[in-house]
Amino acid sequence: MNQTESSAPLDPEVEQRVRDSFSRQGLMRHLGAELHEVSRGRVIVRLPFRETLTQQHGYFHAGGTSAIADSAGGYAGFTLFPPDSSVLTVEFKINLLAPAQGDYLEAIGTVMRSGRTLTICQLDVFGVTDKGRAQVALGQQTLICMHGKQDR
Amino acid sequence: MNQTESSAPLDPEVEQRVRDSFSRQGLMRHLGAELHEVSRGRVIVRLPFRETLTQQHGYFHAGGTSAIADSAGGYAGFTLFPPDSSVLTVEFKINLLAPAQGDYLEAIGTVMRSGRTLTICQLDVFGVTDKGRAQVALGQQTLICMHGKQDR
Amino acid sequence: MNQTESSAPLDPEVEQRVRDSFSRQGLMRHLGAELHEVSRGRVIVRLPFRETLTQQHGYFHAGGTSAIADSAGGYAGFTLFPPDSSVLTVEFKINLLAPAQGDYLEAIGTVMRSGRTLTICQLDVFGVTDKGRAQVALGQQTLICMHGKQDR
Amino acid sequence: MNQTESSAPLDPEVEQRVRDSFSRQGLMRHLGAELHEVSRGRVIVRLPFRETLTQQHGYFHAGGTSAIADSAGGYAGFTLFPPDSSVLTVEFKINLLAPAQGDYLEAIGTVMRSGRTLTICQLDVFGVTDKGRAQVALGQQTLICMHGKQDR
Repeated sequence: MNQTESSAPLDPEVEQRVRDSFSRQGLMRHLGAELHEVSRGRVIVRLPFRETLTQQHGYFHAGGTSAIADSAGGYAGFTLFPPDSSVLTVEFKINLLAPAQGDYLEAIGTVMRSGRTLTICQLDVFGVTDKGRAQVALGQQTLICMHGKQDR
Repeated sequence: MNQTESSAPLDPEVEQRVRDSFSRQGLMRHLGAELHEVSRGRVIVRLPFRETLTQQHGYFHAGGTSAIADSAGGYAGFTLFPPDSSVLTVEFKINLLAPAQGDYLEAIGTVMRSGRTLTICQLDVFGVTDKGRAQVALGQQTLICMHGKQDR
Repeated sequence: MNQTESSAPLDPEVEQRVRDSFSRQGLMRHLGAELHEVSRGRVIVRLPFRETLTQQHGYFHAGGTSAIADSAGGYAGFTLFPPDSSVLTVEFKINLLAPAQGDYLEAIGTVMRSGRTLTICQLDVFGVTDKGRAQVALGQQTLICMHGKQDR
Repeated sequence: MNQTESSAPLDPEVEQRVRDSFSRQGLMRHLGAELHEVSRGRVIVRLPFRETLTQQHGYFHAGGTSAIADSAGGYAGFTLFPPDSSVLTVEFKINLLAPAQGDYLEAIGTVMRSGRTLTICQLDVFGVTDKGRAQVALGQQTLICMHGKQDR
């Protein structure tokens, strides 16, 4: 396994594969999540605040926070996979650091270690307003690369 | 900390508090999740399949699986909390054991250890069809009881 | 992946492979851990109390608790692997439910899902005295089967 | 909760409390672990290689890796706690990124979020030789501050 160089430029075909796959995720569309940025080993997903995303106290529900964190990490890994493969989440763990609030949430998935079979990502989620940003969640995720199973 | 007796009958007022709180979760309503069963230290949430809940291969998205698992565990803990308190998820970890498919998902949150401040739950999620049920996720969750902060 | 039938009898050759491998773990010997029971998809490791195992308050250190939990889970998975393979821990998560005390700790690793590549285990650790046993830790572990890499 | 300023200078009394507490951990001594560096919200523990620390393939056992990661994170949190308190690990999760090898392991615990009750740390473990260092584990930990319970 080799640490990824996340600053390297991204092949436009890879970005297209990520965008096509993201657009097939019914849940992301239903939540209103947007694929904000795709780079090599790093993907950012944003989720604007809506009443339909809340938990009982009016903050973003941990389920929404987790959903965009999981997608951001999954696609960050996917940018490093071969063309004829797809990505599955093996597991993730997330700490909710503070009430998730803001105009939108921003989830950043970053590949920490990329192997032939398994890839490990860090997940960071921020609550953003026009006054600033505060980290609301921190997570860690294990992905598996399904070789020979093209993503549709 | 004492292990909970999950077979004990549930105070109807507690069940009402859980149901009221669940109904205030905009995300559960938006996903179409239903609070199926509330007992002492154990809560079941169901999520019928919809196109709006999918990931890129047409299965339930891990975000939806996690969302109902988190709510099931959170409210399982809440059934053991004092009346003038509320519940927050500190963290959870979930393993996705198999593609999440079925007519609906059923998430069972079970309190494993209940303390004054922290409560630990096990999270089990099953995919259910008329032919049977298969476990699709297994998780573990840490909750914190916010004393003196009534759930609205 | 198929759920394991943990009650099935264990091939004596498999038990021997597990015992040989365990005996090569320098750390288990150094801590004084014993391989107590090996069955299909389930392994029990015991750790008698010693001053050399403590944290700052005199209880078992979480590192010792985790070490035997990790070995118990790893070998539980290994009982289901083909002969020419070895086992590596991908990740684990452990909740420390109560101060780890007792005459000895008993860690039980149980396979929850066994696949060709990945295996998921539950980890339970108990503190045992002549008066009873109390659960001190609960965990979840992901293992990978290294096909074609025999365990020495 | 407020993010910690980990670059701030450390009160010598706090460092002494950390060093006293570490020296009471029988397990750290038994493994041969050394408290290498203590700064505000960040602690480094080193573990020189010994045959007594191995798993079945001759690498460092995940139990040893986890033990020093847990201690590094716990004491990183402890540097930010009030004098009359002690620290307990609620839970941790660790991904083993690569075989843990080297002349010694170096575990770095870093506080990511510090609250009155709960503190969240990141755990990084490196294998170090005279030729370089490679990350072998990445983890996340939740600590609880026991107010009014002085660390002996």
